[in-house]
Amino acid sequence: MFELHKTATTTKARLGTLTTDHGTIETPIFMPVGTLGTVKAVKQDELIRKVKAQIILGNTYHLYLRPGCEIIENAGGLHSFISWDHPILTDSGGYQIFSLSDNRELKEEGAHFKSHLDGSKHLFTPENVVEIQRILGSDIMMILDECPPYPSSHDYAKESMELTHRWEKRGRDAFLNSIPHYNHQQFQFGIVQGGTYPDLRKESAKYITDLDFEGIAIGGLSVGEPIELMYEMTDLNTDYLPKEKPRYLMGVGKPANLLHCIARGIDMFDCVLPTRNARNGQIFTPDGYVNIRNAKWKNHNRPLDPDFPTDLCSRYKMSYIHHLFRNNELLGLALASLHNLTFYLWLMEEARNRIADDTFHSWYKQKAELLDTKI
Amino acid sequence: MFELHKTATTTKARLGTLTTDHGTIETPIFMPVGTLGTVKAVKQDELIRKVKAQIILGNTYHLYLRPGCEIIENAGGLHSFISWDHPILTDSGGYQIFSLSDNRELKEEGAHFKSHLDGSKHLFTPENVVEIQRILGSDIMMILDECPPYPSSHDYAKESMELTHRWEKRGRDAFLNSIPHYNHQQFQFGIVQGGTYPDLRKESAKYITDLDFEGIAIGGLSVGEPIELMYEMTDLNTDYLPKEKPRYLMGVGKPANLLHCIARGIDMFDCVLPTRNARNGQIFTPDGYVNIRNAKWKNHNRPLDPDFPTDLCSRYKMSYIHHLFRNNELLGLALASLHNLTFYLWLMEEARNRIADDTFHSWYKQKAELLDTKI
Repeated sequence: MFELHKTATTTKARLGTLTTDHGTIETPIFMPVGTLGTVKAVKQDELIRKVKAQIILGNTYHLYLRPGCEIIENAGGLHSFISWDHPILTDSGGYQIFSLSDNRELKEEGAHFKSHLDGSKHLFTPENVVEIQRILGSDIMMILDECPPYPSSHDYAKESMELTHRWEKRGRDAFLNSIPHYNHQQFQFGIVQGGTYPDLRKESAKYITDLDFEGIAIGGLSVGEPIELMYEMTDLNTDYLPKEKPRYLMGVGKPANLLHCIARGIDMFDCVLPTRNARNGQIFTPDGYVNIRNAKWKNHNRPLDPDFPTDLCSRYKMSYIHHLFRNNELLGLALASLHNLTFYLWLMEEARNRIADDTFHSWYKQKAELLDTKI
Repeated sequence: MFELHKTATTTKARLGTLTTDHGTIETPIFMPVGTLGTVKAVKQDELIRKVKAQIILGNTYHLYLRPGCEIIENAGGLHSFISWDHPILTDSGGYQIFSLSDNRELKEEGAHFKSHLDGSKHLFTPENVVEIQRILGSDIMMILDECPPYPSSHDYAKESMELTHRWEKRGRDAFLNSIPHYNHQQFQFGIVQGGTYPDLRKESAKYITDLDFEGIAIGGLSVGEPIELMYEMTDLNTDYLPKEKPRYLMGVGKPANLLHCIARGIDMFDCVLPTRNARNGQIFTPDGYVNIRNAKWKNHNRPLDPDFPTDLCSRYKMSYIHHLFRNNELLGLALASLHNLTFYLWLMEEARNRIADDTFHSWYKQKAELLDTKI
């Protein structure tokens, strides 16, 4: 499934390909998030033609509640339901149970929770989230885990990690003892936890590695801890992960974060940030970011960056984009979402090119600093 | 500017072309409404490539308040501000003063009103709306009129019409005594009023004809009167309008209304209905309309109409479109808006083809009935 083509010499950055029945993904890669089976404000054909997305993400928790498994199964699976003939990764719903559900109770068998929509009661177990993701038919499914909050005590983080480990063993067994519902192969990724404690992170990486998933995710980061601590834990985790498996850092992040984590050996990313921030008027560019609602753009009658190939950057005057945002026009949200995702995928391509020609190390720190600058 | 190519034999339907410096428009035509310089939820390149829009409309009242004339003038006019190199028609703002403004007072010199946004005080006169539209730089500008409500007494409708006539004379003079601000020609259309009174409609048509505008609009209809009365007034008005001028029925309407009014000699239409109703989940098709939020579509796993060339109709399953609307996803609004406008422009092309091959009369009534049917 995963082929490692190159590891950079001075950093841990890697170049690889990940092959699924719906297409091959070049890594490092960013996966746009399509929570409810739609990447907000972006059309499927734009994701392919303009964003050049290679894989998108769907949220099991959300799709299970709306429209529900029956409708997606009747439609022939998630690919068919949303008309997307390219790779899809689905998470396990674990993170949303803890961040969205009104009420949840962790037991050994699984996570009991109430829907954030109507208060209805549900249970996710390591086994049934495999079954739900068999119904969704994602190319890559994630294992059920518990994501402890930051900060958590060492005791809490350890107990949580141990529960996650037991769940992951059960989830892996359920996966190995079941078969795809549709005519394509599915892979399963495990998730490393351990809070911000190096000993637990190390232990978890080893345990999860032994379960021999097709890929390994680093979970429980980017949940409020200082950014340097996130980098540190990522760096430590990748030291204990097998080279031949793809590594996915969940829920990260800003453009600069991606570069720093590629340097620490990460292959895959997902985050709602580019689309959510787009809807708030934050535009990412190769030279830093812009808050389009700022009055400084009101009378700025040139495009932001004529050389960057999105309509937002090269077709429209900044004064017009500012006007759209000031008036909450849907066109503003659509142009900015399309732009930010195109930028993220462009940044990943840049990173891949830099790894390929051995200039990543000399490029990424300065670039990350520039990307974090407000224009 | 306008060339009349053909008038149907059994109905008053006409085939023509309207030539502006930004392009030639085939009539009958529907003009998508871009209130604030954006057709809601549709991208400019989609308007051209997919909708096949030939001309769009901007609202003087809205653009004057936001972003204001200074910003649009600095950007080089409305075409340049919104990046639209095709024809634009702007209304005079008269209708919005009466429908949106918190507070307005009609005087002989013009309409005093307070902004619906911040309560600030403004005055529109027949002369300054010409000047504002010179700044906007629309290809076709409308004259300032008063649009009386329905129902209005004969006395009120007559007084209102007479004020409108005095304003139109002043507005026409202001137009003839001023020049474009940019490097393209502008035309000015007059507006016939007279409420729902045949004698006034006839008088107004004659008066406005004498002012020799480049085109003539029928105003004051589709404001709540019975549909048959709207058809009757339209029919009566076109009998008194010169054949060699384009005729624009303002603010109409549903697909069936368009066909009935083409049969009564109308060349141009505008209405927010296709985009507004799209956002509420009403989808127009050649075989009738659909309310996509209806539960009957929840588990409907086929496209609505594989033969109609929009993504909404032919790419996606109805269950998915239903899901998008039930969850207020922006993609639903975008797909439906794009679809409805594409449908309106397709319907106009159908009508033109039917007029060209002399089958309009035998086609339009049955088609109008079908279009008014709920699927």
